[in-house]
Amino acid sequence: MRRFVIIGQKATTSPDFLLEDLAGTSGRLDVLVRALRAAMLVSHGVRRDTVAYLVLLGGPRPPKTIRFDGATVRFLRPEERNVATLIKKVLARTYEGGPFARVRDGIAVADGGLETVVADLAPGTPYVLEEGAPDVRGVELDLENAIFFAGDHLGFNAETRAAIASLGATPISIGPVSLHAEDAITIVSNETDRRAALV
Amino acid sequence: MRRFVIIGQKATTSPDFLLEDLAGTSGRLDVLVRALRAAMLVSHGVRRDTVAYLVLLGGPRPPKTIRFDGATVRFLRPEERNVATLIKKVLARTYEGGPFARVRDGIAVADGGLETVVADLAPGTPYVLEEGAPDVRGVELDLENAIFFAGDHLGFNAETRAAIASLGATPISIGPVSLHAEDAITIVSNETDRRAALV
Repeated sequence: MRRFVIIGQKATTSPDFLLEDLAGTSGRLDVLVRALRAAMLVSHGVRRDTVAYLVLLGGPRPPKTIRFDGATVRFLRPEERNVATLIKKVLARTYEGGPFARVRDGIAVADGGLETVVADLAPGTPYVLEEGAPDVRGVELDLENAIFFAGDHLGFNAETRAAIASLGATPISIGPVSLHAEDAITIVSNETDRRAALV
Repeated sequence: MRRFVIIGQKATTSPDFLLEDLAGTSGRLDVLVRALRAAMLVSHGVRRDTVAYLVLLGGPRPPKTIRFDGATVRFLRPEERNVATLIKKVLARTYEGGPFARVRDGIAVADGGLETVVADLAPGTPYVLEEGAPDVRGVELDLENAIFFAGDHLGFNAETRAAIASLGATPISIGPVSLHAEDAITIVSNETDRRAALV
C-alpha cells in the first residue's frame, strides 16, 4: 500500500469555509485538495492501493485528520470544488470519537493529528518531501509500503518536522525547481510507479 | 522558452459555463484549467519562461485559443475556480479579430485552433504526449525551446493527431501508469528542469 500524509498547517477543521473562496477562507485547504487528487487519482480512476491522510492543523478545533482509502472510496473526482464539497460534508458530520470513525465509504475522520496518523499506519518505510534533500531518483524506495509525508505551501512547522524525523523518515526532493505539493506528489508517485513496473 | 499546447476536444469557447459545476457545464474546461496550473505555476510564482495555449474545440463558436505568457501574466493563482473565473472573463470579452488579440497582461485570445497556434509559435522542437510512446527519460529534449502538445481526458481526435504529426513532433510518454494531463505536464516539465539544471 502506498500512503501519503499531507499536512496543512493552517487548513481548517471547520466546514464553514466558502466554496466560492476556498483559498481565502479555509486556511489553504485548496492546497490539500489538489494534493489529494495527485495522490489518489489517475486517468479515469482511483489508485486502489493508495491511502491518503489530510492532517488539518488550523481552524476552530484542531487537529483533525481525514483518511481516504482508495480501495473503497467512491465519488472522488478530480475537480477541486467537488473534492472540497466532499470535505465540507465530512467536516460537518457528527461522528463517534476515537481514531478514524467511518463517515462514508472509504472516508474516515479522527480528532487527532500526526500522532493519530502514525498510530493508524500499518508498517512501512517513511519518506519526507523536503526541498534540498537528496534527489528521489537516487534514493531506494519501498515499492510496496512507502509512506510519504508532505507539507503544504508553508512547509512543516518545527514540531511536525521533529515528529516526522523521529519516525526515521528519509528526506527526499524532486528536482531543481520548487514546486507545489501536488506536483511533488505526482513526481514521487511516478518514480515509484516506474520502479514498480520494472520489478 | 518552454511552450505547452493543451487541446480540449470539447472545451467550451463560451463564457456561459457555471463555476459551480465546471466539469459538468464547460466541456471539461476543468481539465485544461488544471493543466494550465501545472504548466505555468511553481511554488509561490509563475514560470516566466513558459507560454501555454489552451485550444478550445467545443462550445458554440469553436475553435478559440487562449494564450498565457508567463513573462507578463498577472494574478494567475493555483486555485481552480480562480483560473476558471479568469478564463470566463477572457471569453466574455469582445476583442479585435485576427490572431491573438491581447485582452489582459500576458493573456491573448484568437479565433482559431491548432493552425493558429502553429503560426504563432516561434521556432522550437515539438513533442507530443502520447500513451505508449517512448519514455521521455530516454528522449533528447530541447532544453531551450521545447513545445509540448497535450490532449485532455479524451486524448486527441484524428484530425488533431494528424496535424501534430505533420509538424514532426516526437511522441513521448511519462511512465507506466495513465495519468491526468496535468500530471503528465508536471512530469515532462520536471524532466526538462532536471536536465536544464545539469547544463
